[in-house]
Amino acid sequence: MAVYTEIDDQTLSAFIADYDIGELVSYKGIAEGVENSNYLLVTSQGPYILTLYEKRVNPADLPFFLGLMNHLAGNGLACPTPVAARDGEALRELCGRPAAIVTFLRGMWPRRIQAHHCAQLGTALARMHLAGEGFTLTRRNALSVDGWRPLFEAARPRADEVMPGLADEIARELDLLEARWPTDLPHGVIHADAFPDNVFYLNDQFSGLIDFYFACNDLLAYDVAVCLNAWCFEADRSFNATKARLLLASYRKVRPFEDAELNALPLLCRGSAMRFLLTRLYDWLNTPAGAFVKPKDPMEYLHKLRFHAAVSGPGAYGLE
Amino acid sequence: MAVYTEIDDQTLSAFIADYDIGELVSYKGIAEGVENSNYLLVTSQGPYILTLYEKRVNPADLPFFLGLMNHLAGNGLACPTPVAARDGEALRELCGRPAAIVTFLRGMWPRRIQAHHCAQLGTALARMHLAGEGFTLTRRNALSVDGWRPLFEAARPRADEVMPGLADEIARELDLLEARWPTDLPHGVIHADAFPDNVFYLNDQFSGLIDFYFACNDLLAYDVAVCLNAWCFEADRSFNATKARLLLASYRKVRPFEDAELNALPLLCRGSAMRFLLTRLYDWLNTPAGAFVKPKDPMEYLHKLRFHAAVSGPGAYGLE
Repeated sequence: MAVYTEIDDQTLSAFIADYDIGELVSYKGIAEGVENSNYLLVTSQGPYILTLYEKRVNPADLPFFLGLMNHLAGNGLACPTPVAARDGEALRELCGRPAAIVTFLRGMWPRRIQAHHCAQLGTALARMHLAGEGFTLTRRNALSVDGWRPLFEAARPRADEVMPGLADEIARELDLLEARWPTDLPHGVIHADAFPDNVFYLNDQFSGLIDFYFACNDLLAYDVAVCLNAWCFEADRSFNATKARLLLASYRKVRPFEDAELNALPLLCRGSAMRFLLTRLYDWLNTPAGAFVKPKDPMEYLHKLRFHAAVSGPGAYGLE
Repeated sequence: MAVYTEIDDQTLSAFIADYDIGELVSYKGIAEGVENSNYLLVTSQGPYILTLYEKRVNPADLPFFLGLMNHLAGNGLACPTPVAARDGEALRELCGRPAAIVTFLRGMWPRRIQAHHCAQLGTALARMHLAGEGFTLTRRNALSVDGWRPLFEAARPRADEVMPGLADEIARELDLLEARWPTDLPHGVIHADAFPDNVFYLNDQFSGLIDFYFACNDLLAYDVAVCLNAWCFEADRSFNATKARLLLASYRKVRPFEDAELNALPLLCRGSAMRFLLTRLYDWLNTPAGAFVKPKDPMEYLHKLRFHAAVSGPGAYGLE
């Protein structure tokens, strides 16, 4: 939850005047998201979202993110689309920061995940992977396997403050992941952060994906692994194989898995768990006490990692 | 900036179904306001504001606040109006808290106060005072003169941590205010918190008042004094007599002052400065370090208090 940049009403009205979106009628800071400043604008033409990109986003990545949203929407995926100003540019500057207005996406993210959400997510994610084909810009995944060790080294000296033995456990797991990580699976543009708060539903129907600010080129099945971790564990840490089965089955109806992808799934899930364990661990150790944004518990992802490390094969995810 | 209560999407959809405002399409927590949880809802009929009343609001006061908004709007004042559910009630319960939906008010509060804002505020405030006539519910002002000493006593032991000598200075001033505070001036329903963030403008025209959660029955001229303090000092602490003159002149065109009100103005301004000095001082001393909401600087209001204590008469406010 954060609005980092306060915008002056006059400055914003002047900014809006460069667009063909009507006159500004209202704007409110949105108390969601921790990376950027988001405002819900209401103009005489309806609602829009304004994002000011804060320091955790690399400005050089913004053409990729905004171009991707346009590309995906052009290929029929429901997602916000950047609105170009009269000069033709969607990426502009406001209050000294890169800024963009995107269309307003109807829907709400599900606070209580139900099986039908997972089934629809599988379909939507596969459609996104297909819709991403032909997008010419690329962005490497800085948070994939070769990005994990630097994160670990930064967190290692104090990792055992979170749990005794944590540093050793991560070190062993990281050796294994680096040795076995696959490289020859189908790849393309992935969302890489399709957690429930980035997937909207309206009347129990999928209505769109948002927040493409971790999107990158990587193994498509890795995106599925991220979702299995984010959507298929219950609050009591148990794995819900029904949700996983629905997610995978609906995904594979739209984009069939190769055998190699299926077999790699447990390892990809371990890797995805490692990625979120490490970023959460780093944030946990580096967030000042009483900070504005409360860091998320890294241990949730240690438990997920252990689950995937213990499965005997992809059948654990509800498949035969 | 605060959303204290997180609302579940299913719970909210079920709540909305009790109203005739269309189907819920979206909701976002608003990162403004420190007393309550506010959400901007978008339904198939347009935007609305949902407020969950948190612990700083006394539930017994809610019929006054909501009834007042209806009464003022019925008398032509631009302000949000509570939306009744199908059972006829506007005051309902959500997530274990009192909750109400109000209409969406177009406009934005001015970040940079200009003279024309003050002129229009004067007109609007006087219209509100007239529009409040005939409202049958009453609410005493718990933060008027008899509420100041208890606040002071709570803050007194540590007041000098903020500035050496502050406790003595407040004590002397409080003795004077209690001895001289007027009681026989015109009274009625006042807003009591008409700071810039509670007054909306659209295209440089006043578009409405919001946030009536300090409204009460008190001296009408005291409400004007609150505004003189909140709108007519510059960032460098100087008093802008032009803004004050415009505010007062436009107010008095709609509701002429009695001579007694005019003469009492310096004292009422001192009292209003004392009220915000004391509440800010209390919050300053009682907000944990690193808390979610950053307390406002009490010293700003000590300087305002000193200004009004030093004036020779109401002429200091730009009048003859």
